[in-house]
Amino acid sequence: MKKKIIKAELSAGYRDFLPETMIPRQSILDSIRGVFELYGFSPIETPGIEKEEILTGGDENFSKQLFRISRAEGSDPLALRFDLTVPLARVIAQYPNELKRPFKRYQIGRVWRGERSQAGRYREFTQFDADIVGSDSMMADAEIIAVMYGVMRKLGIENFKIRVNNRKILNGLPEYADFPKEKIGAVLRSIDKLDKKSWGPVGEELEALGLSKDQIDALKKFVTLRGKNSTDALSQLKKLMKVSPLAQEGIKELEEVVAHVGALGVPDDAWVVDFSVARGLGYYTGPVFETTLTDIPEIGSVFSGGRYDGLVERFSPTAVSATGASVGVDRLFAALEKLGKIKKEQTVAKVVVLNFDPVAREYIQEVAAKLRGDGISTDIYLGSEESLKGQLAFALKTGAPIIIIAGEEEMKKKTVQIKNTIERSQEEAKASEAPERVWSILKK
Amino acid sequence: MKKKIIKAELSAGYRDFLPETMIPRQSILDSIRGVFELYGFSPIETPGIEKEEILTGGDENFSKQLFRISRAEGSDPLALRFDLTVPLARVIAQYPNELKRPFKRYQIGRVWRGERSQAGRYREFTQFDADIVGSDSMMADAEIIAVMYGVMRKLGIENFKIRVNNRKILNGLPEYADFPKEKIGAVLRSIDKLDKKSWGPVGEELEALGLSKDQIDALKKFVTLRGKNSTDALSQLKKLMKVSPLAQEGIKELEEVVAHVGALGVPDDAWVVDFSVARGLGYYTGPVFETTLTDIPEIGSVFSGGRYDGLVERFSPTAVSATGASVGVDRLFAALEKLGKIKKEQTVAKVVVLNFDPVAREYIQEVAAKLRGDGISTDIYLGSEESLKGQLAFALKTGAPIIIIAGEEEMKKKTVQIKNTIERSQEEAKASEAPERVWSILKK
Repeated sequence: MKKKIIKAELSAGYRDFLPETMIPRQSILDSIRGVFELYGFSPIETPGIEKEEILTGGDENFSKQLFRISRAEGSDPLALRFDLTVPLARVIAQYPNELKRPFKRYQIGRVWRGERSQAGRYREFTQFDADIVGSDSMMADAEIIAVMYGVMRKLGIENFKIRVNNRKILNGLPEYADFPKEKIGAVLRSIDKLDKKSWGPVGEELEALGLSKDQIDALKKFVTLRGKNSTDALSQLKKLMKVSPLAQEGIKELEEVVAHVGALGVPDDAWVVDFSVARGLGYYTGPVFETTLTDIPEIGSVFSGGRYDGLVERFSPTAVSATGASVGVDRLFAALEKLGKIKKEQTVAKVVVLNFDPVAREYIQEVAAKLRGDGISTDIYLGSEESLKGQLAFALKTGAPIIIIAGEEEMKKKTVQIKNTIERSQEEAKASEAPERVWSILKK
Repeated sequence: MKKKIIKAELSAGYRDFLPETMIPRQSILDSIRGVFELYGFSPIETPGIEKEEILTGGDENFSKQLFRISRAEGSDPLALRFDLTVPLARVIAQYPNELKRPFKRYQIGRVWRGERSQAGRYREFTQFDADIVGSDSMMADAEIIAVMYGVMRKLGIENFKIRVNNRKILNGLPEYADFPKEKIGAVLRSIDKLDKKSWGPVGEELEALGLSKDQIDALKKFVTLRGKNSTDALSQLKKLMKVSPLAQEGIKELEEVVAHVGALGVPDDAWVVDFSVARGLGYYTGPVFETTLTDIPEIGSVFSGGRYDGLVERFSPTAVSATGASVGVDRLFAALEKLGKIKKEQTVAKVVVLNFDPVAREYIQEVAAKLRGDGISTDIYLGSEESLKGQLAFALKTGAPIIIIAGEEEMKKKTVQIKNTIERSQEEAKASEAPERVWSILKK
């Protein structure tokens, strides 16, 4: 009976990262981690599986997107986390003694959402978050903006804009534009589309919500307000929204943020106060942040967040203030790819040692061990191709900058041939001096 | 109505890593990655969720431990992966053109198993694998042993032993000890317990399986065979098992491994041929490896693997040879903790800048920005404690080696107080020279 062969494939909405994409992806993740640590954020890890109640807080809207775990013997309903913020809130409530506040943590991890699978939408993706818990100072929000700036610069991105708003200002809109408070959610969802849509269709949406021309005009005046700089914009807004005490509070917070962000060394042109930034998630309560790439705004925000002072209350009788931001790793990677900032590589190896002469097998292993001992990433050809020519063709395809060739002849002389695949040159060197020669080529 | 507070807790069998454990854990993972890359292994990532059929291959034994995903609209039955090897086999079959063989990859990732939850057993844990696919050379198996050795040394572990066997030798046991082939699975499971149990109870298990005294004696002779060294042990085994052609093939393979491992620079005392090593998983077909820590053998193997030439056949009509090993990250971390090799830290920050004087708020932010600009991980105190004394107590508890103090007085002089918390000394320095002074303390 012929054995059944199972088709090797993923379900829709999932994907693999092969070395060609994983090597640069890893290097991006390392860079982000480096910046987070530079700003004093420490790592934590939490499991992918949590109790369903923890994740949803009983909110049915979230639970539609939830991936539930089905286990016969399981007692608690369990599910996969859909972000890293809710698990952080749980951690804060669960370990009050271990985690002294303020607490700054970063976390990288997979999250899962039951999105309709479509181009560029994945059901499993990676988030990379930095949060400050237990500080209600606007200095904390300024730190988040500074770390966002630091990450973008570290990744070599020059044309980007961190857009900052305050949910308190947005929550003051019903008072300002004189529309019913119940409509604020729908209004914000429309306004939030302004990073991708122009005012025209957004205005039509607002009309469909039953807003009057006066109300819509007031909203347009609000979202299109621009000043000479952030301080000027805030000062204009203060006058515009003078009827709303809540908005005044939000404006005052942003004025503080402006001063702190400058002191933290973030240049003025890297960020802007933008009153159209709403951020979808319900839990934001203060400043909110987004990062768009000036050259590809259509990709949306690659690094976003805000203050969410209420979230920990789900798990604790005492309120805990918190602010943070999350890198959408997959979207950021796609953006960097579009910007031509991703160098695709097939292998991490800097050297491939050929292995075509059975007599010299242990000799080339000793050479490889010497290179590795000197910190040089080294591969030995281990495939079925026996000819020097065939192995050389394989090694050239890997893109490794150096190929080392040694057969019986070299073994007897205790030498190796060192091939520089980039400059297409070759030299013979003593085996004992191979690491030094390889380093001198790599450092060029 | 009082809001319901949800109890912040994990389900049994799951756990969090707070900074105290995550900081050293991260450093261990970085070390392992460094060694894997040194040996020319490149990273890949695959999703946590795969089609159920891919994971189980239709095998009901595996599927008992499986975590299934329940989704109303989902078409394929999906589940969480239980290891990284089966996904690798899928990847190999799925991308024959993208992945030129031999292909060396490493992968770190969470895996999930529905184990009965008990002390030290987790339902979600981390594996870190290195595998070579597409090489039937024993040089590949030797590379795996060398990389295992490299990792253990890199982690500062001195007393360990890599124990090597060959499944072909074990599969020759029915011929050698003259018992029915059907019993081989049960016999190997008993023998596999010898790393934790002595011969006594294992012998009793074999008796319970219906083996005769002669058969058991022959098995004991086999598993307790020790030579002066690996070469000698293999030469003795060759005579002992001369009736089994399969065992002879396995012995020949190990003889090749012995020669290669030496050439790759692994010292003789770091590894040993041990005929009692069986490894549980059904898919092994050739050499198998385990790593035990001499000082805490009861913890079991921390780094194990073997050759599994048949696995890719589940997804492909052509056989693809493969060999590799997996670090049990959680077990390894527990072992390093027991060995006192884990330095617990509360924060990655090297400097905490106090923030007690509202007048100097932007001044200290500028100081922090300078330190960060010079690559020094720096935290600014952002909590509600307002007094210098209270903030100092907080900063001292974080364990950060340096605390920087600056109020209005220092601001006017453009200086800072630099407190070395380890040597309990303090100096005043110009703010512009702070990075240089901090580096000189950190480098001590």
